[in-house]
Amino acid sequence: MFRYKLTVEYDGRGFVGWQRQDNGLSVQQAIEEAVLAFCGEAARLHGAGRTDAGVHALGQVAHVDLEREAKPGALRDAVNFHLKPHAVAVLRAERVGADFHAQLSAKERAYLYRILNRRAPPTLERGRVWHVGTPLDHEAMGRAARVLVGRHDFTTFRASNCQAKSPVKALAALDVARDGDEVRITARAPSFLHHQVRNMVGTLERVGEGKWTEADVAAALEARERAKGGPPAPAEGLYLVGVTY
Amino acid sequence: MFRYKLTVEYDGRGFVGWQRQDNGLSVQQAIEEAVLAFCGEAARLHGAGRTDAGVHALGQVAHVDLEREAKPGALRDAVNFHLKPHAVAVLRAERVGADFHAQLSAKERAYLYRILNRRAPPTLERGRVWHVGTPLDHEAMGRAARVLVGRHDFTTFRASNCQAKSPVKALAALDVARDGDEVRITARAPSFLHHQVRNMVGTLERVGEGKWTEADVAAALEARERAKGGPPAPAEGLYLVGVTY
Repeated sequence: MFRYKLTVEYDGRGFVGWQRQDNGLSVQQAIEEAVLAFCGEAARLHGAGRTDAGVHALGQVAHVDLEREAKPGALRDAVNFHLKPHAVAVLRAERVGADFHAQLSAKERAYLYRILNRRAPPTLERGRVWHVGTPLDHEAMGRAARVLVGRHDFTTFRASNCQAKSPVKALAALDVARDGDEVRITARAPSFLHHQVRNMVGTLERVGEGKWTEADVAAALEARERAKGGPPAPAEGLYLVGVTY
Repeated sequence: MFRYKLTVEYDGRGFVGWQRQDNGLSVQQAIEEAVLAFCGEAARLHGAGRTDAGVHALGQVAHVDLEREAKPGALRDAVNFHLKPHAVAVLRAERVGADFHAQLSAKERAYLYRILNRRAPPTLERGRVWHVGTPLDHEAMGRAARVLVGRHDFTTFRASNCQAKSPVKALAALDVARDGDEVRITARAPSFLHHQVRNMVGTLERVGEGKWTEADVAAALEARERAKGGPPAPAEGLYLVGVTY
């Protein structure tokens, strides 16, 4: 067996999410079918993490085992050829050892959340940002974000269907920056609960609008109750930026 | 009459171009219909410049005369409301005097051309960049670009259907920069010939691939013959960034 690490970019709009599902095309299925078309092997793809429908990736990572060896560059190009017309592409393919596991070896995941903060709706960025028409105080959002950094019980920001054994996670960074009309929130952690980033962003957005204070966010975290957090931010603004090993 | 200056953003993919045409929806028509829906006035929109089908705008400028006065913010919001679901939006509406003319008062136009320079095809940027899989030497492109800056007869880079009276134009800037996998070419001039930016970019791309030298570009310019220039770069990588008055 030859194991390959694939770094994958996709536009989440055309997919039901990363993981195979019965209700439509997933990114995983699209790539598995492209691998099959390339080399005739029905290989299973293991992703670093599942992304929901509509969530994008700039650097999702997956591994796949092939029975026959392929040159990494040839594997990348052939899979990309067979992935057309889907909006998913393999940026890099690398030969890795059998001890590499895309999900289990991952040390850190990084996400980006993009808010387009202006009156006018998005045109070029439609489906790729969350449009918030009310002016957001990104500095207040940044202060509130710092309340969430560290090791906490994140039950308040956890989806009801989350499969994680524990709600305790170590949030390494949660930064808020403004670039013109865009408010960009970056989050890094060894791992996240289901919907954790979107639920944190939905809460920070309330702070940005002036509806909630930093103290309200601290109280929400402390409450360990989903109903005390803000609503989830929409999937379309979320990007899996990269995975560190 | 009350004159308004509109700053407009659009994704060029859904339109036959800026100008009204019989073969499909133009940006001009979409906005004129939104103005009509808002205030009942069949007002004509005057744009700073025509963009071709597939060309995007971050800051196209147009003016329109209305018989009844409207608050600029209300005009912007109402036109944007009626523009749905088209990927065009009014970023700003401003009240201007009768001496302002979007096309004739313009002092400078700025364009951006985006080349995605990597093996993997675009996913999130599909339709919004020109994909070039061969590595480009952006520094060589930058040196060749400087040959074109200044006042020249740009016949070599002029579309055969160009309506301009003279092929002589003053190119104020043509810069090439790399940002990761992206090569970004910015062009500024009081005005451009039809397809001038795309024809210049198509020529610079040949330099980037190593097929042409700086001297070849100088010779092409000197030849004043369209056939001596490179092929036009595709519309999808071109953005009208802004217009200065």
